[in-house]
Amino acid sequence: MTESYPGIKISIGDDAALFHFSGGDVLLTTDCVFEGVHFNLDTHSLSDVGWKAAACGVSDIAAMGGQPLCGLMSLAYSNPMGEKEIRSLFGGFIEMLESCNCALIGGDVSRSRSGLSLAVTVAGVPHIKGSVSRSGAEAGDLIGLTGHAGDSAAGLYILSKKDEKLRGRFPELVEAHLRPNPRIEAGGIIASAGANAMEDTSDGLARDLLHICEESNLGCILEERLIPASENLISLAELEGEDPFEWIVGGGEDFELIFTSSENAFEEISRCCSERGIPVTMIGRMVPACEGRFIIRKDGSRVNIESFGYEHFA
Amino acid sequence: MTESYPGIKISIGDDAALFHFSGGDVLLTTDCVFEGVHFNLDTHSLSDVGWKAAACGVSDIAAMGGQPLCGLMSLAYSNPMGEKEIRSLFGGFIEMLESCNCALIGGDVSRSRSGLSLAVTVAGVPHIKGSVSRSGAEAGDLIGLTGHAGDSAAGLYILSKKDEKLRGRFPELVEAHLRPNPRIEAGGIIASAGANAMEDTSDGLARDLLHICEESNLGCILEERLIPASENLISLAELEGEDPFEWIVGGGEDFELIFTSSENAFEEISRCCSERGIPVTMIGRMVPACEGRFIIRKDGSRVNIESFGYEHFA
Repeated sequence: MTESYPGIKISIGDDAALFHFSGGDVLLTTDCVFEGVHFNLDTHSLSDVGWKAAACGVSDIAAMGGQPLCGLMSLAYSNPMGEKEIRSLFGGFIEMLESCNCALIGGDVSRSRSGLSLAVTVAGVPHIKGSVSRSGAEAGDLIGLTGHAGDSAAGLYILSKKDEKLRGRFPELVEAHLRPNPRIEAGGIIASAGANAMEDTSDGLARDLLHICEESNLGCILEERLIPASENLISLAELEGEDPFEWIVGGGEDFELIFTSSENAFEEISRCCSERGIPVTMIGRMVPACEGRFIIRKDGSRVNIESFGYEHFA
Repeated sequence: MTESYPGIKISIGDDAALFHFSGGDVLLTTDCVFEGVHFNLDTHSLSDVGWKAAACGVSDIAAMGGQPLCGLMSLAYSNPMGEKEIRSLFGGFIEMLESCNCALIGGDVSRSRSGLSLAVTVAGVPHIKGSVSRSGAEAGDLIGLTGHAGDSAAGLYILSKKDEKLRGRFPELVEAHLRPNPRIEAGGIIASAGANAMEDTSDGLARDLLHICEESNLGCILEERLIPASENLISLAELEGEDPFEWIVGGGEDFELIFTSSENAFEEISRCCSERGIPVTMIGRMVPACEGRFIIRKDGSRVNIESFGYEHFA
């Protein structure tokens, strides 16, 4: 690993990793994923678990508009793991990092009391034009979303049913849940165009937009008819007789980007993303806090977005 | 927090933290601590848990000879925690970081399946003369140790007995276990003097020296009579009729530094540490691998150091 990344001077196997950094601002994020909370080993392979844990950290960097540089993983387990299993888990982790030119530079292994857990640290550099926080949204901003909403939740639905036929019919939805691809390139474009606020949709569209509203002291109006859902998700919902609304607005772990910007910046973002084949859709507008935080459903009714998703033990 | 550290541009509450770094090499480490494995809430207060988790990360930086800059904590719990409890935990974490001019720049909270766990990330800068890894030891090097060995294990013994009288009699031992102070200043001195290898004694003296032996492909001869133990530890062992040997050689979490260096460098380290009131003791010598890895007991018998401590599920 150190051979292929000349900036890395000391890698796994010491007290700390050492890498060279040419100076400037550094983005740093840490996340934990737990068996039984964020994944289950009857639906996720160890390689998938590794991939997804890395994606969580990488997506946090993407959501600031930054480029990930290197990652560390601290693995803990209660049941002994063989070398093959550890290789599989680290393999998925490294595969994700390498897909975005990010290097694994450190990690350790310890015991936990129950189940498998992974703590992930990712360092990155912000976009040269600066980072996009959650707190900079302005009233009147358009709200944009990359990709589709809810595919990960739909994939989880399929995995939870343990229906191989369903799984074979919608491999893209399952893939969206097991092997999400953070939007690093889109994040850079959105930062470059001067968006006012940004976050990834790791907690779900409604919940993450709520974070932006809270940090920016604003309200928002989303329109259900504007929110892009994939054909696969719609087909699955019809086939299963499920209402896709909860997947789309409440489902987490899409790792898409939700952002707010002026109309001019939005045009620029749409153009640049379109050139690179990245879908971006306007799904609503930021408003003063006194106007509320809600979504207008297709039938014209209004639903408070605070009723979606969950805040841990809040 | 961001106000008192001008280099920190975005702190807790966003996808990633953002701080300014003037360029050069960066040390980065991540560790996890788990309830039931690394601490128990019947012996550790939440503030102690926070302190110790931070100390684990800071000590990793110290063990490279570096200076910690900033830390992040990712907290997870299965039972709901009140604001007061979370404040207490973060309070201990921040108190530890601030004691070494290190800032908390980020963190998040999530659910775990069982118990409390903390993932800690600490970033730092290496000593200007470079970092000291585990792999640079040379045959003939002296082996040095800062402070005393085994105080933390003796403190854990007291806590496990739940004997308030014993606890009142040996507060320093209990403190050594609950509120360890990583050897940042000593780490810098050891790096500056050109030590060949270094590690903190978080896994125990024997186990950590074994890491240096393995990474450097060498053997070692420790002498029990040379290993410094505190008067408190000796008194406790006598009072309780316990053999202190296992605490001293096998006990973990002392967060002292064990290092190897030439005789000249050792003299320099001893002199500089002595000026700052930091005890440093020569406890043995590195030898070629073929000569083995053992400790000479006071009675002249030899014990293989591989028989001490534990490697997680190895």
